[in-house]
Amino acid sequence: MNAIRSSSEDYSELTNANRIEAIQRKLQMSGLDGFVHYQTGRAKENVTIPYLTGVRGLEDSGVIIPASSEPVLLVKDFEESRAKRQSSLADVRGVTTLPIERAIASIGEVFKEKGLAGKRIGIDESELTVEVYNKLLSLGVSIVPFATELISMRMVKTAAEVKRIREAAAIAGAAIEKVRSLVPEGLEERELAAEASNLMQRSGEASFVSVQFGPNASFPHHRGDSTRVRGDGLLVVDLGANVEGYNSDITRTLYVGSPSERHRNIPDVIKLAVSDAIEKVRPGVPVKEVALAARRVIQNSGLPQPRHRIGHGIGLNVHEKPIVEEGFEYVLQAGNVIAIEPGTYLDGDTGSRIEVDLLVTESGAELLDPKSLPLL
Amino acid sequence: MNAIRSSSEDYSELTNANRIEAIQRKLQMSGLDGFVHYQTGRAKENVTIPYLTGVRGLEDSGVIIPASSEPVLLVKDFEESRAKRQSSLADVRGVTTLPIERAIASIGEVFKEKGLAGKRIGIDESELTVEVYNKLLSLGVSIVPFATELISMRMVKTAAEVKRIREAAAIAGAAIEKVRSLVPEGLEERELAAEASNLMQRSGEASFVSVQFGPNASFPHHRGDSTRVRGDGLLVVDLGANVEGYNSDITRTLYVGSPSERHRNIPDVIKLAVSDAIEKVRPGVPVKEVALAARRVIQNSGLPQPRHRIGHGIGLNVHEKPIVEEGFEYVLQAGNVIAIEPGTYLDGDTGSRIEVDLLVTESGAELLDPKSLPLL
Repeated sequence: MNAIRSSSEDYSELTNANRIEAIQRKLQMSGLDGFVHYQTGRAKENVTIPYLTGVRGLEDSGVIIPASSEPVLLVKDFEESRAKRQSSLADVRGVTTLPIERAIASIGEVFKEKGLAGKRIGIDESELTVEVYNKLLSLGVSIVPFATELISMRMVKTAAEVKRIREAAAIAGAAIEKVRSLVPEGLEERELAAEASNLMQRSGEASFVSVQFGPNASFPHHRGDSTRVRGDGLLVVDLGANVEGYNSDITRTLYVGSPSERHRNIPDVIKLAVSDAIEKVRPGVPVKEVALAARRVIQNSGLPQPRHRIGHGIGLNVHEKPIVEEGFEYVLQAGNVIAIEPGTYLDGDTGSRIEVDLLVTESGAELLDPKSLPLL
Repeated sequence: MNAIRSSSEDYSELTNANRIEAIQRKLQMSGLDGFVHYQTGRAKENVTIPYLTGVRGLEDSGVIIPASSEPVLLVKDFEESRAKRQSSLADVRGVTTLPIERAIASIGEVFKEKGLAGKRIGIDESELTVEVYNKLLSLGVSIVPFATELISMRMVKTAAEVKRIREAAAIAGAAIEKVRSLVPEGLEERELAAEASNLMQRSGEASFVSVQFGPNASFPHHRGDSTRVRGDGLLVVDLGANVEGYNSDITRTLYVGSPSERHRNIPDVIKLAVSDAIEKVRPGVPVKEVALAARRVIQNSGLPQPRHRIGHGIGLNVHEKPIVEEGFEYVLQAGNVIAIEPGTYLDGDTGSRIEVDLLVTESGAELLDPKSLPLL
């Protein structure tokens, strides 16, 4: 079981600045003297430093948050001016970060300056690599897991975070409508994907696009290839935009030509599964009940259950916690943003998936997908 | 100092299949009984499992390589059919991977089946997270760093890897020519970026695009915004395509309108820095000598040195080892693929960078950039 503690604090009004204060309170309550993170490569998908500082795309960079003094962001020296403009932390220092030993030495100096040498330091063990961990240990501090606390904060979005996801959902909705308008042209899957991607990149940053037609729709992770979208069948379009680091994740099943009645009925079932799941969403409801509501509709239809999870949190990652599925002990609270994506797949025949993005509000759920975008 | 051992073995003819045999030999020579990796999120930028199995985009998946029996790929059960089609490993198993404890239990079962319980197991500590590391330790095995061995293999590309990078370079070159052809239209930076991205996505997968005009070009990590590319100035276009996981990374500095003579001279210096660096590239040459050749040209011109590294390896990551810079003790060998990217930045005024992709051959260097793409 994956017991993620629901936070009793309300972070929904936190700005990026007092996010640090909230972390410092949690450090103190956990008996920790500070927090440290350092990331090497994979700039696009790293989230810990963007979450803590507002600066994205940093490779070879670190952050140190003492429990009771000013935090420090260490960046590659040539990133210093950009990081200073973008960071919510006041103390940004350009240092030599390659080889990694140079960066670790700089972290050691900050530890000394902040009185953290030999102390108990929290880490985000869900992101920190073992390579960095071993080098931090060599600085003589005690390392303590702290990811659960960070993740419990990240699951409850601030108003500013919701605003970005909402914008990303609007862009994704426009991209799906673009694909719908192009269906009569008989393009290839990958050409439709490129059109959707191009539209999203003009408004934000294209994050991902998957276009799957006919039998390809029966393989949930098919990426879109030279298959021509022509004739009769179901077209699954799954895409997401990114606005200032925050993702949307929306899927629709479109009809191409005149699908058989058997095929045509499938998306109606999935649409009902989505509606029943949305009905369940409100603060205080365990995530598994939302998943079960969707699975019950699929069960009753006689269609096969999807082997993937019914839903997941969205934010800085396209897939993040809470996982919306049986086996995950999380109780929804206001400020969660989740994607619900039931589907069904008939191997080699056809498939359907519909995915909506929801904000959990005090009284229920608000759809972040554009109002103008039909579920089918 | 970051002493990466140059391998004495020649991996350049390795296929994906005997890559596993080479790793098994290295495990045996290191006194290890096996290797394990498990990755949670960040599907796009993870490289360890794609390198070992040929399957990309897997979240929540693991690989176990016993030193002397068949390796196993564990994937989310709904990914099983795709992974079986794509994997170079014969033994692919769909399992429940969420919550993570379920996946770790499956790894424990494979350990038992393969006689690895309680044994010495290598990891890729440059990629494995501390969360997974701690859970692996709970299985009662001894964990030993093995990333250096994997990285020394990854630095020498196989013919199949070079072929993909070469294709990715051809696509990137076409995207730069597309931007060049659109310059007279006076578009915004982000519109040019979208056009380049769209072209790349139609041929492979767009990886990244950065378009920086005028003063924006003085900030190496500016991403492209609503700045209109019109009037007189330097336009830096830095982009890369991705073909089956392998990246290119190419930059050109283009003239827009009639830049001042002072601005116009800058890219000529950078072009000379590139040429002098290329001259140095051949097996047996320390990477720092390549970097110093480029820096010497910039030094002599009186322009400021770039604060970023002069070059880096490319492959499954856009930036990987070897780092081409002073302070890195790596001696080039045939099969390395490196990007050389000298630049110079005059804060708030202008900037220039030129980047080429090179294969180190037995006798020197082969440019992977399209022959038709001028350096300026």
